[in-house]
Amino acid sequence: MHSTKMRLLEAGLGMLLEHGYNDLGIQDLLDRTGVPKGSFYHHFQSKEGFALEAVDLYMSRVHAQLDASFSAAERPPLLRVRDFFEHVREAYASEGYRGCLLGALGQELSGVNDVFREKIEGCLATVVSRIAVMLNEARQRGDLPWDTDPEAMANVLVDAWEGAALRSRLIGGPAPLNAILDFYFRVVTVG
Amino acid sequence: MHSTKMRLLEAGLGMLLEHGYNDLGIQDLLDRTGVPKGSFYHHFQSKEGFALEAVDLYMSRVHAQLDASFSAAERPPLLRVRDFFEHVREAYASEGYRGCLLGALGQELSGVNDVFREKIEGCLATVVSRIAVMLNEARQRGDLPWDTDPEAMANVLVDAWEGAALRSRLIGGPAPLNAILDFYFRVVTVG
Repeated sequence: MHSTKMRLLEAGLGMLLEHGYNDLGIQDLLDRTGVPKGSFYHHFQSKEGFALEAVDLYMSRVHAQLDASFSAAERPPLLRVRDFFEHVREAYASEGYRGCLLGALGQELSGVNDVFREKIEGCLATVVSRIAVMLNEARQRGDLPWDTDPEAMANVLVDAWEGAALRSRLIGGPAPLNAILDFYFRVVTVG
Repeated sequence: MHSTKMRLLEAGLGMLLEHGYNDLGIQDLLDRTGVPKGSFYHHFQSKEGFALEAVDLYMSRVHAQLDASFSAAERPPLLRVRDFFEHVREAYASEGYRGCLLGALGQELSGVNDVFREKIEGCLATVVSRIAVMLNEARQRGDLPWDTDPEAMANVLVDAWEGAALRSRLIGGPAPLNAILDFYFRVVTVG
């Protein structure tokens, strides 16, 4: 990717997490990155197109973390799932607990913008699918009750995590994230 | 409350759920309600003041529902908690699954506005406290393990619910809400 484009997306990601979509000023982004307006509109058709590509960049990192956590074949699959969320929590910490971009844009925009609504739902659904693969592996090893529905349990985890991410954003700390992980992994195994 | 003020807040509540804060146009609100601008600024100092009072109106309904559900003394306390969330789910349904105003404004504004951040966190914390009272009653009856921390378990439930409310907003249906309730109430009792 062109380095100017990447610089805009990198800076935009952080600004979207802080400001949300409607409060994000393109001029502010240009000032922070030192990129001229013409260059922005060379790389992006619109603010919406820009934000959608920022979501893609965000998701490329999520999938890279899923790859890294889930490929640890020496770890039981349930621990690999927990590892993933603990890495995400560390990423939130490094950003000052601003929560999850998917939750932020999903909340702000899905009432008025079907492009974002479908985009964000699609992103969450792909994460759910990948987690469901791990939960199914756990089920086949006997780490989860045999009647566990991996897709349903993956949805519960992702949705609960999104709520905890909001709460961690409100209080500026990790306690809600840890509480959800502790609760989920303590009880999911006893079904 | 003055009827014009109530009409603005009622309409504003729905518009905030749909549009969020930054995308809500005061002129649009005035057009929909037929209220002149001068009257708006007679009742509210600013858009922010208006939205904060809309949150108060929202919370008055949440607390009325908590009162109604929790006062059913013939129901076991855990069922009263579940009743509350099922009523909230019905309210979401009647609004077309736009989710929760607290989650929406908390996500959108908490990165840039400490007044909203603290307001929304305060609202969630009061709901958590009321649920914790019920969970403690359940614990004392032996419906929850004795070592249950009612406040911690109430936080988990509210946070998971907020994530499910976001997801129900994304998909336009109740499945995530039901899944979280089924998971939580199935497993909370087995500790």
